[in-house]
Amino acid sequence: MAEKKMVEAITSMDEDFAKWYTDIVKKAELIEYTSVKGCMVIRPYGYAIWENIQKILDGMFKATGHENVCMPMFIPESLLQKEKDHVEGFAPEVAWVTYGGNEKLEDRLCVRPTSETLFCEHYANIVHSWRDLPKLYNQWVSVVRWEKTTRPFLRSREFLWQEGHTIHATADEAIEETERMLNVYKDFCETYLAMPVITGKKTDSDKFAGAEATYAIEALMHDGKALQAGTSHYFGDGFAKAFEIMYTNKENKQQYPHQTSWGVTTRLIGAIIMTHGDDNGLVLPPAVAPIQAVIIPIAQHKAGVLEKAQELKATLEKDYRVKVDDSENSPGWKFSEYEMKGVPLRIEIGPRDIEQGQCVIVTRHNREKTIVKLESLQAEVAKKLKEVRDGMFQKALENRANKTYACKTMDEITAVLESKGDGFVKAMWCGDEECEDKVKEVTGVGSRCIPDTQEHLDDKCVCCGKPAKCMVMWGKAY
Amino acid sequence: MAEKKMVEAITSMDEDFAKWYTDIVKKAELIEYTSVKGCMVIRPYGYAIWENIQKILDGMFKATGHENVCMPMFIPESLLQKEKDHVEGFAPEVAWVTYGGNEKLEDRLCVRPTSETLFCEHYANIVHSWRDLPKLYNQWVSVVRWEKTTRPFLRSREFLWQEGHTIHATADEAIEETERMLNVYKDFCETYLAMPVITGKKTDSDKFAGAEATYAIEALMHDGKALQAGTSHYFGDGFAKAFEIMYTNKENKQQYPHQTSWGVTTRLIGAIIMTHGDDNGLVLPPAVAPIQAVIIPIAQHKAGVLEKAQELKATLEKDYRVKVDDSENSPGWKFSEYEMKGVPLRIEIGPRDIEQGQCVIVTRHNREKTIVKLESLQAEVAKKLKEVRDGMFQKALENRANKTYACKTMDEITAVLESKGDGFVKAMWCGDEECEDKVKEVTGVGSRCIPDTQEHLDDKCVCCGKPAKCMVMWGKAY
Repeated sequence: MAEKKMVEAITSMDEDFAKWYTDIVKKAELIEYTSVKGCMVIRPYGYAIWENIQKILDGMFKATGHENVCMPMFIPESLLQKEKDHVEGFAPEVAWVTYGGNEKLEDRLCVRPTSETLFCEHYANIVHSWRDLPKLYNQWVSVVRWEKTTRPFLRSREFLWQEGHTIHATADEAIEETERMLNVYKDFCETYLAMPVITGKKTDSDKFAGAEATYAIEALMHDGKALQAGTSHYFGDGFAKAFEIMYTNKENKQQYPHQTSWGVTTRLIGAIIMTHGDDNGLVLPPAVAPIQAVIIPIAQHKAGVLEKAQELKATLEKDYRVKVDDSENSPGWKFSEYEMKGVPLRIEIGPRDIEQGQCVIVTRHNREKTIVKLESLQAEVAKKLKEVRDGMFQKALENRANKTYACKTMDEITAVLESKGDGFVKAMWCGDEECEDKVKEVTGVGSRCIPDTQEHLDDKCVCCGKPAKCMVMWGKAY
Repeated sequence: MAEKKMVEAITSMDEDFAKWYTDIVKKAELIEYTSVKGCMVIRPYGYAIWENIQKILDGMFKATGHENVCMPMFIPESLLQKEKDHVEGFAPEVAWVTYGGNEKLEDRLCVRPTSETLFCEHYANIVHSWRDLPKLYNQWVSVVRWEKTTRPFLRSREFLWQEGHTIHATADEAIEETERMLNVYKDFCETYLAMPVITGKKTDSDKFAGAEATYAIEALMHDGKALQAGTSHYFGDGFAKAFEIMYTNKENKQQYPHQTSWGVTTRLIGAIIMTHGDDNGLVLPPAVAPIQAVIIPIAQHKAGVLEKAQELKATLEKDYRVKVDDSENSPGWKFSEYEMKGVPLRIEIGPRDIEQGQCVIVTRHNREKTIVKLESLQAEVAKKLKEVRDGMFQKALENRANKTYACKTMDEITAVLESKGDGFVKAMWCGDEECEDKVKEVTGVGSRCIPDTQEHLDDKCVCCGKPAKCMVMWGKAY
C-alpha cells in the first residue's frame, strides 16, 4: 500500500500569522468551509475539542447550581425591540426569516444573535414570587451574527456557545453571580486550557448592548494581539423593566428582579490555537485534547510490536483518551501528523523497547523525550500530562509577560509597539471616552479592560494628563 | 411559611387524552409556550430528560464507531435544490432567511429542516479515495419545519434531534448501517425508555424524500395511536450522483459511494409521556429520569429526621440522581408533586422509621410500598429501579398486545376499531398504493410499516383480495 500523502508543512507563524492560523484549522482537520460565507463545518477532531470544553464547563456550571434549558432559535422582531439599547446593538447584524414555507410572516423573526429577550419573555411567565428566585439557567446552542469579515472560530456568522442567563431578587446577588461566572471562566481557561487570562471590566464604550456593566477575560495571543475569551454581564433591572418582570417579595411588595448573562464560544478553540500552537501545528491542552496520547508502533511488522502497542492502549484507556496508529504510514509520517494535530503525548514502542521493557514518551509542547519503564507507564502518563499543562501555562505566561508594556505617555506606547511588536499596554486613564478614542487613534491600541488587579503606574491619564482614575489594559484585538 | 399552591389535578386520560397530555407537559414543567407559534422553551426538568437521552444514545453511537460533527444551520436554496425528490419533500415547509442585517441575500437560505444536502456538499469536498470511507458522522442540533398544527414535543416548528449521516463504499455496507442504527434505536427505546417498538420498513408512499428505503420504529401510545419514534434511511447512490461525490476504489476506478441517514428527536419525550403516563402525571423510565429517587422527610421538624434524609442522599447519590425535598410543604403535597413529575422512587423517612432502622420505598408506576432496612437501602434501590423499568416495559407491552388486532377484511378492521378503540391493526397487503390509500380512506388507519417480524395471516390483500405480498401494521398516527 502506498503511503498516504506527505503531511504538508504549514506557513510559519513569523512569516504570516494569519495564514499560519488558517493552515492549522484546515490541516489539523478542525473545520471545512461551506458554500455559505462565514458558516463552517466543525469536523470530528474540532468538534471533539468542543465536546471536551462543554463537558468540563457544564460540570462547573452545574456545580455552581445552574440548570440547562433550551430556548427557541427565533425572536420575533417585536420582542427584540423591547429593550432599546439591546435592539440597537444587535438589529444591524441579525439574519431575518421572512417566509415560513410559501407564506410571508407578519412579524418577521430574527435568528437569535443572543437570547436575553427570549429569557426575559420566559421569566415574565414563570417568575412571580420571591420563592421563584433565583433562576440560574444556561443553554448550549448556536447563534447567528451577520458579520462582514469572518475567520474560522474567531468571527463567524454562526457560532456555538453557551449563554448563561440568571435572575435574582437583589442587585447584590446578581453582581455576585456576574463575578462568580467570570471567575469560573478564568479558572477554566487557566486550569484546563493552560491559557492565562486577565479579568476586568469593560469601559462604557465597550459594554454589551443593554448591560449596566460588562466584565471580560482577556488573553494574549502568540502574535501579541488580545482576544476576548469570555464575557459576563450585569443588567441591573433594565431588562426586567422593559419586559415587565416583577415578583412579590417577602413583605408582599412588587419588585423588579436583577439579571445577568455570560457566555463563552467556540472562539476558545481559536484562542487555544493562537496561544499554544507552533510551526509544527496545534498544541492541545491535555484536558481538552481528543487524543491525549498516541501510541506509535516502530517496526510494526516485527512480531509482538502491534500486540504490545494494543496492550499499552488497553492499560491506558481506562483513564485517558488513547489511540494506536497501526496504519501503513511510516513512523516519521505519523510523528508529523500527530504533531500537526497537537496530541500532547506520543508514545513510541518498538522491538528494542519491548526487549528492554520500556517505551519512549515525547511531549508535544517542548518535544522532550523520556524513556519510561513499561511497568510505571500509567503513573508516568499522569505525571507527563500534568507537566504538559503546567509547561504550556508557564510558556504562555512568559509570552504574555514579555509582551506586556507599562507606559506613561502616548509616545512611549507608540515607541514600544514599534520596537517590540504588538502586546498588552498598561497605562493610566482618566475615565474619559474621548481619551480612550484618542489613544486608539494615535497608537492603534484600544482599551481591552480595566483589570481587576490594578497598579498605580502614574497619577496622570496617559492621554490628557488629567488625574487618572484607573489603569487600563490596552491592545489590538481579534 | 404558607404552603405552596396545591398540586393541581390534571384532566384524566379517559376524559380527554389530548388535554391530559398538554396538562402534563405544562404542570410537570417540561415546557413553556413562547410568542412564536410552534416554538417552545424546554424547561430544566424537560431538558434534563433530553440530556439523559443524549448521553446514553451518544454513547451507543460512539460505541458503533460514529463521530460527532457540526454543520451550519443554513442551506442555500441552490444547494437544497440539487436532489429533486428531496427539495420537493422539504421546500414547502422550510423557514427562509432573506435578509442578513439590512442586506437582501442573493441566494436565500433555508434554516435546515434536515442536513442531507450539507453533508453531501461536505462529502464531495473530503471523500476522494476508498481510504476516506466510510465516514460515520452524527450531529446533535435543532431543525425547523414550518408545520401548520403543532403540539409540544410531538410536532413543533423547531425541534431538537440527532441526525446520523454516513457514507460507504458499497451498497451492502450502507444497508447494514441502516439496519444497525434502527436496531440501536430499538434497543435504546426498549432497554432505557421501557417502551416496546416495532421495527419495520415504510411503504413507498411514506418514504423519506430522496431515500431508496426508509425504516422506522413504531410505538403504540396509551390511547391506541401509533407514534413513529425514529427513522433510518438508505439512500443508495442517489445523493452521491446529485452532488457528484465520487471516490477512487482499490482498482483505481471512480465509483459513487452509498449513503444513509437516521434520526430521533425530542418527540421521544412525547412518546415517554404517552406510553407510561397516568392520571397522576408523568411516569419516567429510571434511565432518563432527572431525579431517580426523591427522599421525603416525614415530620421533618423532629430531631434527626432531616439529618437522616441527607445521610441517605449522601449514600445514594454516588450511584443515583437523588433529591431530598426539605421544603416547608406538607408530605402530602410532596407526594403529589413528585408523582406529577414521574420520579420512579419515593423514599419516605420519619421518626418511627429511624427508630426501626428502616424507610419506605414507593414505586411510581404501580404505587407499591416496600419497607426496607436502611443498611440494605443501596442494594434495594438498585433492585427497585430495575423492577420499575421491567414493570413499565411489561405494562406497555400488555397495552400494545391488548390493542393489536389481526384482521382479514376491511369490515373486520372497522368493527374492531369501533368496539375496542384505536390500536395497531395487522393485515395483509398486495403492495399496491391504491389499496393502501383505500384502507386509510375506508377504515381510518394508515400503513405504519411493514414489520420485520412478518406473520402470514391470510393469502389475500385485506383490500382488493389479490395475492398478498406482506403483512402491514396499520394505525392512526401522531
